[in-house]
Amino acid sequence: MVMNFDIPKWTPTSKDVLEAHERIRDGIVRTPVLTSERIDRMCKAEIHFKCENLQRGGAFKYRGALNAVLSLDEERVKMGVATHSSGNHAIALSLAARKRGVPAYIVMPENSPGIKVDGVHGLGGMIEFCAPTQKAREEGALKLLERTGANFVHPYNDPRIISGQGTAALELLRDVGDLDMIVAPVGGGGLLSGTSISVRAFSPDTQIYGAEPSGADDARRSLRAGHIVPSEGPDTICEGLLTSLGDLTFSVIRENVRDILTCPDGVTVRAMKAIADLLKVIVEPSGAVSLGAIMNSPDIFKGKKVGVILSGGNVDISKACSLFQGDHDPSIGGGPGK
Amino acid sequence: MVMNFDIPKWTPTSKDVLEAHERIRDGIVRTPVLTSERIDRMCKAEIHFKCENLQRGGAFKYRGALNAVLSLDEERVKMGVATHSSGNHAIALSLAARKRGVPAYIVMPENSPGIKVDGVHGLGGMIEFCAPTQKAREEGALKLLERTGANFVHPYNDPRIISGQGTAALELLRDVGDLDMIVAPVGGGGLLSGTSISVRAFSPDTQIYGAEPSGADDARRSLRAGHIVPSEGPDTICEGLLTSLGDLTFSVIRENVRDILTCPDGVTVRAMKAIADLLKVIVEPSGAVSLGAIMNSPDIFKGKKVGVILSGGNVDISKACSLFQGDHDPSIGGGPGK
Repeated sequence: MVMNFDIPKWTPTSKDVLEAHERIRDGIVRTPVLTSERIDRMCKAEIHFKCENLQRGGAFKYRGALNAVLSLDEERVKMGVATHSSGNHAIALSLAARKRGVPAYIVMPENSPGIKVDGVHGLGGMIEFCAPTQKAREEGALKLLERTGANFVHPYNDPRIISGQGTAALELLRDVGDLDMIVAPVGGGGLLSGTSISVRAFSPDTQIYGAEPSGADDARRSLRAGHIVPSEGPDTICEGLLTSLGDLTFSVIRENVRDILTCPDGVTVRAMKAIADLLKVIVEPSGAVSLGAIMNSPDIFKGKKVGVILSGGNVDISKACSLFQGDHDPSIGGGPGK
Repeated sequence: MVMNFDIPKWTPTSKDVLEAHERIRDGIVRTPVLTSERIDRMCKAEIHFKCENLQRGGAFKYRGALNAVLSLDEERVKMGVATHSSGNHAIALSLAARKRGVPAYIVMPENSPGIKVDGVHGLGGMIEFCAPTQKAREEGALKLLERTGANFVHPYNDPRIISGQGTAALELLRDVGDLDMIVAPVGGGGLLSGTSISVRAFSPDTQIYGAEPSGADDARRSLRAGHIVPSEGPDTICEGLLTSLGDLTFSVIRENVRDILTCPDGVTVRAMKAIADLLKVIVEPSGAVSLGAIMNSPDIFKGKKVGVILSGGNVDISKACSLFQGDHDPSIGGGPGK
């Protein structure tokens, strides 16, 4: 559904991921990979968590945004960068633009979480609010581009973004060998498609799974239908995973990904809580859906060595606490860090 | 106040810290060093957080415990290891004993937090409860040693423990250069004394500060008095920092540490919340007191490059949430991860 944006449309390869990694490496956090014996016992699998919630800007999104901003030549970048995003990409692009000293213009749905709006503001990004639909986001961005002449950086359907996001799995594969499978959340598909490019090239025997909320399972339906099924009326607390796939991310995912698993929000909250209690890190709901999908489809992962990308941590701790308090699963709670 | 325990009493040096690091390196997590622009703005300092809350067992304690257990010869270690501890050292020693396949016997005060008792149980440690006083802990441990013949591993007043704890600062100094100062919590003084040995040797211009709760400021009073002032009737939520200094830790701290700063519990909770909201990791109250001390004495740290050891994360997330909800500081909350 991308309209008339001037964005590159080539399909990225593993060479692009490696080049992106060289480009961004000094600006990003080499995020740690954590494990927990108790989560392993709970899931009957050996799980390695790549903690992109500890990335700059609080999510993997900074990898792609920084790669895109650093890819622009001196002349073009001066006009600034622009995007539409409900949050984490907006924060990431604002941060990357500030690093290069150029303006960032952001169209945000008016229902974006306060923590993310504040984040963009705090980083000097200029926000225009729009209605919370894909159409309104794209129309708002087009108007903004006409007015400012800025360079559009799509939140996911852009090879520079996909290549950047693929660097998280690249690092995970370098840190942990012989993974049987990797699970990454899927919204617009930037992270999952980038992950799949890295895994195909650098660990071809590893299976790739996407994870999405049961109440926003358009990627799963798209994969089954063989064409993009737009996300309509999504109903989930994972507000980072509401968007539809793009043509570029869909084609890469279709080629590389074994399946897309779903997870009800209740299980996602249990996963968030297990991650807080046992790994000692905070993830946002969209960031916990990959562990949630494992908890929801345990048979697939039993006895396997699994890499999980915890994609973001931008949730207010007070909101996280109120989610936890709505959850009364006796199987999680009290225990040492590992 | 150590009674008739058969423990080594030599004063550890930086060589011991380096040897400890070689000994334990493959068994521990090389914990990440995280930063937050917003915390830096809040404290007007550049702060680098060494995340020992992400260490195995959920605290730095595993460094010392593993060093002690790996230092025992084959013949001696067979009888197992024993200690008295309110929690994190007990978890750490149980984990280290399990790694070597020997029993761990633990005397725990009956008011130890459930999360820590469960942790020891889950790792196969054998617990005997005692009254929550230093005297009852030591008497309980002596009886236990007589019965089992196990090797006593003191929670802090032991050169093998001090050397192991010093490896956290060693890694921090290797990862971040030119620190003006380092702040570590002080309870019995194992972490602070080990830290001070590393810093004196490997970064002699860096100043060393201890941090303790205002309601358990016996280390500060000891430093001022020139002799060990026992901790009597401590009143703080930082249940990992209730013990008195030992003769060994006191002598090392007295020689190396510039000052010990205190922090009221209310500020410690604000520090815990800032760490959860902005660094995206969970620390227990005892682990947050070092940032709390900076927030409580801002003038000392203004404009400085500071290393902070976040010493542990063993707090139940539900308990952390209820602490946060009792806190209504408008200056902290909603913001991106970095």
